[in-house]
Amino acid sequence: MRAMYAIVTREHGGPEVLEWSEVPDPQPGQGEVVIDIAATAVNRADLLQRQGFYPPPPGASEILGLECSGRIAALSIGVSTWRVGDEVCALLSGGGYAEQVAVPAAHLLPVPAGVTLEEAGGLPEVACTVWSNLVGVARLQAGELVLIQGGSGGVGTHAIQVAAALGAKVAATAGSPERLRKCRELGAELAFNYHAKDIAEQLRGASNGRGADVILDNMGAAALADNIDRLAPGGRLIVIGMQGGGKAEINLGKLLRKCGVVAATNLRGRPTEGPDGKAAIVASVRAGLWPLIESGRVSPVVHTKLPMSEAAKAHRLFDEGGVVGKVLLLRGR
Amino acid sequence: MRAMYAIVTREHGGPEVLEWSEVPDPQPGQGEVVIDIAATAVNRADLLQRQGFYPPPPGASEILGLECSGRIAALSIGVSTWRVGDEVCALLSGGGYAEQVAVPAAHLLPVPAGVTLEEAGGLPEVACTVWSNLVGVARLQAGELVLIQGGSGGVGTHAIQVAAALGAKVAATAGSPERLRKCRELGAELAFNYHAKDIAEQLRGASNGRGADVILDNMGAAALADNIDRLAPGGRLIVIGMQGGGKAEINLGKLLRKCGVVAATNLRGRPTEGPDGKAAIVASVRAGLWPLIESGRVSPVVHTKLPMSEAAKAHRLFDEGGVVGKVLLLRGR
Repeated sequence: MRAMYAIVTREHGGPEVLEWSEVPDPQPGQGEVVIDIAATAVNRADLLQRQGFYPPPPGASEILGLECSGRIAALSIGVSTWRVGDEVCALLSGGGYAEQVAVPAAHLLPVPAGVTLEEAGGLPEVACTVWSNLVGVARLQAGELVLIQGGSGGVGTHAIQVAAALGAKVAATAGSPERLRKCRELGAELAFNYHAKDIAEQLRGASNGRGADVILDNMGAAALADNIDRLAPGGRLIVIGMQGGGKAEINLGKLLRKCGVVAATNLRGRPTEGPDGKAAIVASVRAGLWPLIESGRVSPVVHTKLPMSEAAKAHRLFDEGGVVGKVLLLRGR
Repeated sequence: MRAMYAIVTREHGGPEVLEWSEVPDPQPGQGEVVIDIAATAVNRADLLQRQGFYPPPPGASEILGLECSGRIAALSIGVSTWRVGDEVCALLSGGGYAEQVAVPAAHLLPVPAGVTLEEAGGLPEVACTVWSNLVGVARLQAGELVLIQGGSGGVGTHAIQVAAALGAKVAATAGSPERLRKCRELGAELAFNYHAKDIAEQLRGASNGRGADVILDNMGAAALADNIDRLAPGGRLIVIGMQGGGKAEINLGKLLRKCGVVAATNLRGRPTEGPDGKAAIVASVRAGLWPLIESGRVSPVVHTKLPMSEAAKAHRLFDEGGVVGKVLLLRGR
């Protein structure tokens, strides 16, 4: 068995547990392709997995990394939609912080025109997360008011652009004046500091007294009551992160009077197949979101690029809390 | 101003506060019709309103009654879709316990073929509730497993039949062996006593380990944790009643791992217009559900009929807890 280099998590803990080490090459299963990775990107889930709070789903690689870009190095028998050498990016359930990864062919996307191969390494996770939630789960309509929490993060910077491109009126939250400026630059008409007390009132003021039709939330429990207050009649709150915990009191009466929806979703744990599976999401992203990227209405937002061997340094950037958009990890040391 | 008879709630309290008294005739507004009522039906919301816990929405009649059937007595100018004398049933935001009611023409439905004018008086509320939630909110698909809580009630007996007619696999809960038998008779393959401890396991056993794709719930807070346990991946819990309270702890982490949805809806508070408004719901019921009734796949389930003047007696039946299906109130004393 040949060997490659990858970031290995020797034990759970701080960024220092991440080591650039030799590991066995990935072995493609049926329907899979092997990608020579050009770039991967850091997601918040990686930090949780490093700390031991987010174990990979059964069958997934133990190596961190939920997305990548690169060139196809090998195809398993029966894969006819791609060729060796194709430049692609891919949604992974793990294994991105490595020189190679094996992934179902149905999780691959072409590199969109106008995007570099490196930049594409930070697109699949945000693209699939944003599209499957705003369009799939929330069925966001043009003219609706959407609140993007964490507007300056990887998902947030993408979600603001996508929602604006879909014709929604966009509001966003972030933690500093500079980040709020970035949210506006990306298409948010309204931008609020997280800690502002009057977000619900401001949202109603901007929507004939209705509130937010859709909220994309990364805080979970800590923001649940506020978010339900902010919802318009018929509003949909989509929880995609639980940085503020997982258990909270919910006022079903308030939700019922609004005919509201609270959905909580994750991307990694979804199966490949099925109407809400990863293959269907990837296909929908390619059909609906890729054209928005190729027309320039949605662009990758890259905070910085580091060599993959410096993954620990990249994780420290998140702990320090100054990241706007994606942190890319490029192949090599 | 002419006068009619109606059930008036002299003060909030027990069934004894309901009195058959003379009141002013209803005055139709723009786009409304006046119905000479043949029958109305008792809904749980009426009991709450009688007790003072569920005030009518702004602009609605203070008289109880959320549905009726009858003949059109008058049309306001501009209503061209109906004629005086037409036999109809209607979704009301109040005013059904009376000899006449004024209602927007868009809230009217024809009496389905094969259903008597009296029986039709108990259809609009359950039909609109069940169809808007199972088809509209939950997007129930053929082959999915749906759990109908309160399977022997007015909504439950209707929901079991509709879900089965849509090709879903139906499970129901109820409170006695006789009611469970009724649920099975109506189309439930699985029927559980409310208090059974192993409902989640039994649902998983009937669905390759998945659980319920859709749950229609009338308990709210008291059942929330159990219901989330019972959900399949991608499952939708729809809370339409809060007989078990409105505030509960929710485990968002559990919901997130399942990519689950908790929706809470009410029908009465919805506006007439808009994509989720009453007119759209009524139109969708007429297009999708009325044919199921006319083909005999879904039938009205009537527990008993009483004269409208005996509304207090009808309410006592609910307090005693032996009602299966709908209790109709017929015009007259």
